[in-house]
Amino acid sequence: MELLKQRILKEGTVLSGQIIKVDAFLNHQIDVELLDAMGQEFYQRFKHLKVDRILTIEASGIALAISAARFFKVPVVFAKKAQINISHDQVYTSQVLSYTKKSEVTISISKAYLNAQENILIIDDFLAHGQAVLGLLDIIQQAQAHCVGIGIAIEKGFQVGGKHLREQGHLVESLAIIETIDDQTIQFRD
Amino acid sequence: MELLKQRILKEGTVLSGQIIKVDAFLNHQIDVELLDAMGQEFYQRFKHLKVDRILTIEASGIALAISAARFFKVPVVFAKKAQINISHDQVYTSQVLSYTKKSEVTISISKAYLNAQENILIIDDFLAHGQAVLGLLDIIQQAQAHCVGIGIAIEKGFQVGGKHLREQGHLVESLAIIETIDDQTIQFRD
Repeated sequence: MELLKQRILKEGTVLSGQIIKVDAFLNHQIDVELLDAMGQEFYQRFKHLKVDRILTIEASGIALAISAARFFKVPVVFAKKAQINISHDQVYTSQVLSYTKKSEVTISISKAYLNAQENILIIDDFLAHGQAVLGLLDIIQQAQAHCVGIGIAIEKGFQVGGKHLREQGHLVESLAIIETIDDQTIQFRD
Repeated sequence: MELLKQRILKEGTVLSGQIIKVDAFLNHQIDVELLDAMGQEFYQRFKHLKVDRILTIEASGIALAISAARFFKVPVVFAKKAQINISHDQVYTSQVLSYTKKSEVTISISKAYLNAQENILIIDDFLAHGQAVLGLLDIIQQAQAHCVGIGIAIEKGFQVGGKHLREQGHLVESLAIIETIDDQTIQFRD
């Protein structure tokens, strides 16, 4: 998606460890016009599928998931990272390792908001090692639902997450795939 | 806002300690149609003001802030609860006490996304003791910006937050104000 790529080049910054900061428009300050264009683009790419629900993880995934859900006219459910006010037998949980923060978090989704046989679209802001998506897939499997697609804003193509998910047969659509980061120079995959 | 009140009565649940759970449509699963109606209602109530930026706190505030920002055509900035990838001299921070979780968190906003003299609208999902809003007001003051209004989805009118903020001269608009909770019965303020 050209609009997103241009914004990454213009306003993204590269930190050590090949971390890309898009705080200026995506995950601290949010440009709502760009966000809505991204939501519409996700709709274009997945509208041929039957989608019952969109799943994401707090916090940065929420805005994107909402903007896509508006087009699909389905509810969003976001996995929570903090402990939630529900007894343990009423939630699905999974462990997610964050490479950036070098820590593991437990993500939780109430069993009330994920039903067996439903078609789930996962939306998230970043795909690198794929740990967050694997956590959501684990929960979708526990619920005996189906993941019909995975929509990502920015994929780090030089890390293994996207490759592994596609090899497992998942339909992964990323709006911008970064092929390489050399020094401060970002190259996108065509 | 009648639509929201009806949903609270129909799908909200009351936990011990007068905690109201609206996980079914607002802060775990999100009904995007209701969300957009709430965003539009915030616009109706604040559109007479000059708003440069909407400020909220992750995670549940994000969806509401986005839906309001679409009408105002301004960016959203959400305060982060976890440590952020920015050196300490580049962020504003404040301490927020959560009565529900009985713990204190540090909220942070990058100095890059809050400028002196700007007019800020605060949007959040709940107002009870008002700690989260006070944390945002503290940061707005540090930035030498102005808070022109505070938009809340659900205010617990029997707790002190809204009263104190209004006494301090803030314009607080809550879409639903809960006057009392007796047993499982919710009464709204007219």
